[in-house]
Amino acid sequence: MSKKPSIPKGTRDFSPAEVVKRNYIMDTIRENFTLYGFQPIETPSFENSDTLMGKYGEEGDRLIFKILNSGDFLRKVDDVLYTEKDSGKITPKISEKALRYDLTVPFARYVVQHQNEIEFPFKRYQIQPVWRADRPQKGRFREFFQCDADVVGSTSLWQEVEFVQLYDAVFTALKLDGVTIKINNRKILSGIAKTIGAEDKLIDFTVALDKLDKIGEEGVKTEMLSKGISESAIQKLQPLFSLKGTAEAQLESLKNLLATSETGLQGVEELSFITNHIKTLGLQTASLQIDVTLARGLNYYTGAIFEVAAPEGVSMGSIGGGGRYDDLTGIFGLKNMSGVGISFGLDRIYLVLEELGLFPETVSAKTKVLFINFGDTESLYAMQAIKKLRAQQITAELYPDNTKMGKQMGHADKRDIPFVILAGDSEMTSQKFTLKNMKTGDQESLGFEELVSRLS
Amino acid sequence: MSKKPSIPKGTRDFSPAEVVKRNYIMDTIRENFTLYGFQPIETPSFENSDTLMGKYGEEGDRLIFKILNSGDFLRKVDDVLYTEKDSGKITPKISEKALRYDLTVPFARYVVQHQNEIEFPFKRYQIQPVWRADRPQKGRFREFFQCDADVVGSTSLWQEVEFVQLYDAVFTALKLDGVTIKINNRKILSGIAKTIGAEDKLIDFTVALDKLDKIGEEGVKTEMLSKGISESAIQKLQPLFSLKGTAEAQLESLKNLLATSETGLQGVEELSFITNHIKTLGLQTASLQIDVTLARGLNYYTGAIFEVAAPEGVSMGSIGGGGRYDDLTGIFGLKNMSGVGISFGLDRIYLVLEELGLFPETVSAKTKVLFINFGDTESLYAMQAIKKLRAQQITAELYPDNTKMGKQMGHADKRDIPFVILAGDSEMTSQKFTLKNMKTGDQESLGFEELVSRLS
Repeated sequence: MSKKPSIPKGTRDFSPAEVVKRNYIMDTIRENFTLYGFQPIETPSFENSDTLMGKYGEEGDRLIFKILNSGDFLRKVDDVLYTEKDSGKITPKISEKALRYDLTVPFARYVVQHQNEIEFPFKRYQIQPVWRADRPQKGRFREFFQCDADVVGSTSLWQEVEFVQLYDAVFTALKLDGVTIKINNRKILSGIAKTIGAEDKLIDFTVALDKLDKIGEEGVKTEMLSKGISESAIQKLQPLFSLKGTAEAQLESLKNLLATSETGLQGVEELSFITNHIKTLGLQTASLQIDVTLARGLNYYTGAIFEVAAPEGVSMGSIGGGGRYDDLTGIFGLKNMSGVGISFGLDRIYLVLEELGLFPETVSAKTKVLFINFGDTESLYAMQAIKKLRAQQITAELYPDNTKMGKQMGHADKRDIPFVILAGDSEMTSQKFTLKNMKTGDQESLGFEELVSRLS
Repeated sequence: MSKKPSIPKGTRDFSPAEVVKRNYIMDTIRENFTLYGFQPIETPSFENSDTLMGKYGEEGDRLIFKILNSGDFLRKVDDVLYTEKDSGKITPKISEKALRYDLTVPFARYVVQHQNEIEFPFKRYQIQPVWRADRPQKGRFREFFQCDADVVGSTSLWQEVEFVQLYDAVFTALKLDGVTIKINNRKILSGIAKTIGAEDKLIDFTVALDKLDKIGEEGVKTEMLSKGISESAIQKLQPLFSLKGTAEAQLESLKNLLATSETGLQGVEELSFITNHIKTLGLQTASLQIDVTLARGLNYYTGAIFEVAAPEGVSMGSIGGGGRYDDLTGIFGLKNMSGVGISFGLDRIYLVLEELGLFPETVSAKTKVLFINFGDTESLYAMQAIKKLRAQQITAELYPDNTKMGKQMGHADKRDIPFVILAGDSEMTSQKFTLKNMKTGDQESLGFEELVSRLS
């Protein structure tokens, strides 16, 4: 094979600089998950197909990566079916496993499978890759990490309060000030649809409303009309378009608008609980904003809906989202398990931190000091020092080969290693080390203890 | 679906306690990799099939998990081929991607693909899962993590020296004292085979020799005879069976035995370089042992061969291994790139640490303190304290629901949470917190500052 090798489209190699930055984000998220009492679980990369299929809609089923059975997989396909040559029909006969599509369905499966070992309410987090056979495009990959925290087994709204705090804690720790945590409630959307007599058009209605930012008030109205929502119904929506001011004021308007919908009023009450308590508890750098146009994952969420927007001026879709789903584990036969959770968008957060220059300088995979190789005797002297430096947690290396000094210095330079040590005959005799600062070019002769303090 | 869900055989769910312990091992390995100047890379979970196929022998090809093409994958299969219904022949037509089988081939692919961005010698580490369609059995899984460190681009034996130190550093950090790092050299095995005139029987010869521990000297000789190695050849091997004493003494015997084989003598010299320098540099808790019966991955390694055995008394296969391969990237068209590397067996190390009770108590996913929920007003008081505790890095939680106290205490108990805080009316009035030690049952009334110092 002489063709230069490549990787499948939609996948990525990560260089050392990238891995270190990604780990910085994931470690920050992980630390805060832990601080909030979430416990890590991990599930297999592939699940039995029947665990995943049918859980993400028809589109989802198509986008799930299926794993071919091992061995003589065609033997199990009966000849009549085989003759049809129908990919869709043959798939379940030749593939029994599939790659994880998200972390929520495997979590639900985990909870049901291990229900007797789990103490509820169960706060779990999970940071693992998922795979989707989506058409790759800028910022959309076929393999990417999800970072999810969920609680299952309680309907308490304190959990929603805590998730708002958790978003604030993580983005504050990442120095990403000024994110907006948008919040809505599915019950409010249902209530509005009912109030305007368009209950049967809930999806069309929310899809149109969701576009308010992009196409404006008139655009939304036109789209609703075209979907068969009546003029008079749309008229009743007017207060939605002029929701302004404090959370309290907005909630007051919504209360009036939804006066005849019990569900709607319950949504308002839930939103009030969260916004009031967050107001009292305070956020560090994020702000919480009611957004009744927010409808993500509508088929899924039953209560709170969250979405996090990057700070103003950064053009990037949402960098996090989540919500409550009242029947998380019902798909696997365990009823009455309410779940609520949030997710962090690792790839987008990465891009935002990069754009704003927010990765700390210390986030680097760099070696601190390289010892020049002058031959075996000198190298042994170097290796003795290196051993002691590493014991002091200082990243140190010997250039492995005794080649030209220029090449070795060039290696340090290209790898951006800040210090080089030259230790030849005279240094060995005096038990010293010549330390060269690669930035300034300064050299100094140091004993081992001085060396440690210079490099620490 | 009312059947209790399950996961594919050979895969595992990891509970919080298990994830935390696995992370402890991986973090320890990662820290030491970093300290030694290795840089992390990550590669995609699946590669193009032609990157992997043919790299692990016929058996390997069979054990690689293949991913079914998306969409109407049968459309690309021509009718004549289709009619044959031959799984092997159809596979490449309906599957273009496959799950990573190890980390070495993807690393070689990475090096060749990114050769212009890489500064050589390149020290990389990689900790990622791999997948093999092996028959699952005790300790053998279809999904497992590999933890590899390799250097590519230099033939310097200082690297072998460093890998011995690295093994010692990691196992010392894990408090797993007394591991044995066995070392051999492919050139010695080749030299012996040549010396006894059995060059064409190198594999049979090493396979037999490898069993010395299990079947003893006579058993090995019998097996060699049965493989067609002559009586007189076997006679010449006698010194091998009585290799004893210091590394120096063993190397001296080998030198005599291999006097007529240039390759063999070179192997002895390489081994001497490593053992001599390790002797001077010293190891912390591991010991280095020459083992000429060691032959793992013979088709692959060209120089040093490493294997790590658990401390005496622990019955467990090798917990690490590695070696040098002179032509790592040749399979992808980049010649003359020598590589040397080692691997840590995460699952086995886990079992050994578990068996010996070596996981530190601090390695736990436990929450430090749970606030009892007495209702919304009290919960808000609790949440204000929790917020401040978390800011001090103390893992704190509110029980989400206002249920019976016994149930809440039981929750703390079952989750092994060491402290519970009761804060009701009287505590709120006096701005205090009643802290209950769940082990001793002791209760004390504390101000916030005292609380922090008690929990820190």
